Amino acid sequence: MAGVEDEASLIDEIRRAFSDCSFAKPLLVGIGDDSALWRPRAGWDAVLTCDWFLQGTHFLPEHHPAHAIGWKSLARAVSDLAAMGAEPRCFLLSLALPAARTGAWLKAFLRGLKAASRAFNCPAAGGDTTRRPDILVSTTVVGECPRARAILRSGAKPGDAIYVTGRLGEAEYGLRLLRNRNGFANPGDARLRKHLYPRPRLAMGAWLAQHRLATAMMDLSDGLSADLPRLCQASQVGASIDADRLPRVRLRRNAAGKFDSLQLALHGGDDYELLFTVAPRNVSRIPRSIAGTSLTLIGQVLRDERILLLNRGAETVLVNKGWDPFRR
Amino acid sequence: MAGVEDEASLIDEIRRAFSDCSFAKPLLVGIGDDSALWRPRAGWDAVLTCDWFLQGTHFLPEHHPAHAIGWKSLARAVSDLAAMGAEPRCFLLSLALPAARTGAWLKAFLRGLKAASRAFNCPAAGGDTTRRPDILVSTTVVGECPRARAILRSGAKPGDAIYVTGRLGEAEYGLRLLRNRNGFANPGDARLRKHLYPRPRLAMGAWLAQHRLATAMMDLSDGLSADLPRLCQASQVGASIDADRLPRVRLRRNAAGKFDSLQLALHGGDDYELLFTVAPRNVSRIPRSIAGTSLTLIGQVLRDERILLLNRGAETVLVNKGWDPFRR
Repeated sequence: MAGVEDEASLIDEIRRAFSDCSFAKPLLVGIGDDSALWRPRAGWDAVLTCDWFLQGTHFLPEHHPAHAIGWKSLARAVSDLAAMGAEPRCFLLSLALPAARTGAWLKAFLRGLKAASRAFNCPAAGGDTTRRPDILVSTTVVGECPRARAILRSGAKPGDAIYVTGRLGEAEYGLRLLRNRNGFANPGDARLRKHLYPRPRLAMGAWLAQHRLATAMMDLSDGLSADLPRLCQASQVGASIDADRLPRVRLRRNAAGKFDSLQLALHGGDDYELLFTVAPRNVSRIPRSIAGTSLTLIGQVLRDERILLLNRGAETVLVNKGWDPFRR
Repeated sequence: MAGVEDEASLIDEIRRAFSDCSFAKPLLVGIGDDSALWRPRAGWDAVLTCDWFLQGTHFLPEHHPAHAIGWKSLARAVSDLAAMGAEPRCFLLSLALPAARTGAWLKAFLRGLKAASRAFNCPAAGGDTTRRPDILVSTTVVGECPRARAILRSGAKPGDAIYVTGRLGEAEYGLRLLRNRNGFANPGDARLRKHLYPRPRLAMGAWLAQHRLATAMMDLSDGLSADLPRLCQASQVGASIDADRLPRVRLRRNAAGKFDSLQLALHGGDDYELLFTVAPRNVSRIPRSIAGTSLTLIGQVLRDERILLLNRGAETVLVNKGWDPFRR
């Protein structure tokens, strides 16, 4: 497979892939100079985040289509903006890859990345490239939210209602199905869609920030049992979750024996749904869904700093079984 | 060596390392939430850049002290801001490392990173961490420059004078000395200082932007013979460099036989000096040095898009022998 001849050709290919991005207006200088130049909006705060997406750790080129890897490398980082209630403005791509991936693989990766860039209204501003035996991606996203409206993890108060968007466990279900197969994922399989092509909840995050309805918010990237304690720790509170209320992945009938939808919903990572808390007086203002995605009340914030699960009448401590790369 | 127990401990350690950064005022939210929150200055443009710094590709843990790796992972990216004439505001750290590096190695790395953070007035705002067999760093730096004052690569005009800051080839000389040794670099060896602890030319870049004296600028990261063609291509011009004017690395007397200072100055990478062009009417306004660092006129911009080297009365095409990870 023919690849690039030098780094300049690689940067040129990336630049060409994004050259017709007519939505890149606030970018004064994009790919190709020492840095990108971007004009912030007066009266807005800038929101900054970055995310690893690494071969072997986060994806496997023998299973994951390059197009999905491109999409997800931007979607993961954009989800951190959604979690603040921010709008994306532009992104930087740090890409390291073997020469053998600079041909067809790179083209498909860039198509997926560009599809995400359009979907999230987030043009490419710059980045860095180098050669490497493994594919390494680090994506930085810059966004904005109206001054002092960003929703932090630290604002939850005892008595607040706890909500999630969408259904939990869908991405983990897709990942497990993928692992049980040989070879490439079929991007047409609806059960794999959330694992391959997560959609950050930008509209919901921005709506909650605009209406000042969430007291705290974060995105679910490592699983509810890993992420809920983080929100609670930042807010110095506890939480009680009701298993019966949890919006769970829908399993196909023949999968119900092999998979447990509650376990998937509690511990599955990579969903990129939003977890947020709402003061009791505002609960009536939270709609059942926004743009087709449900908002579900799943529990309550507690003063006592424990994380509890109410299931079939019994209340137990919710053990963190989510993803942690360093846990022994 | 005892390391961290989980990702939360690792993030805590990074947060503690930067907790007393009293210079972090424009940061509304730093390490620990989904994203960082930063308030841009009214009337300034934001400048965004990111840089890889990877084990095996850019550094070797068996030669390079962790402290220097920490310093350089920020210095490299900050140099891209200096190249625009911008001031740093904050940075994001994407760090992947083996569990065995989360003890003493991490502490020394963070000390070096923090020393750079103080030196460049650039506080830590956030980032991402994961476990990985090799040490991987991607640093994103956000800066600002007064509106419409950023110096791009594309503004050089035929007849402009070409300048560089400092001396060229010093970092490459240090790298070669290091390669010839066994084991660790001695950070006290002055010949290694520029390779281990480069200092981005922030004051000079900002001064040139403030006084509108440079028509084009970039930093020298891959060597003059690799970087000068990039500036020329962006400006659609050529250049002629005078070998006799080139400020070269000073070799110790016993090294003069083994090393060629002209070759080091033309092709050596990693110097992070500035390369810039000045309209003829402004040449008299360029001082010989700023804050102890020299500014040297080394040649002229040509209309003809060739890169020429004038050496001992003969003019030849300057061949690009700088660093390119993809060149075959």
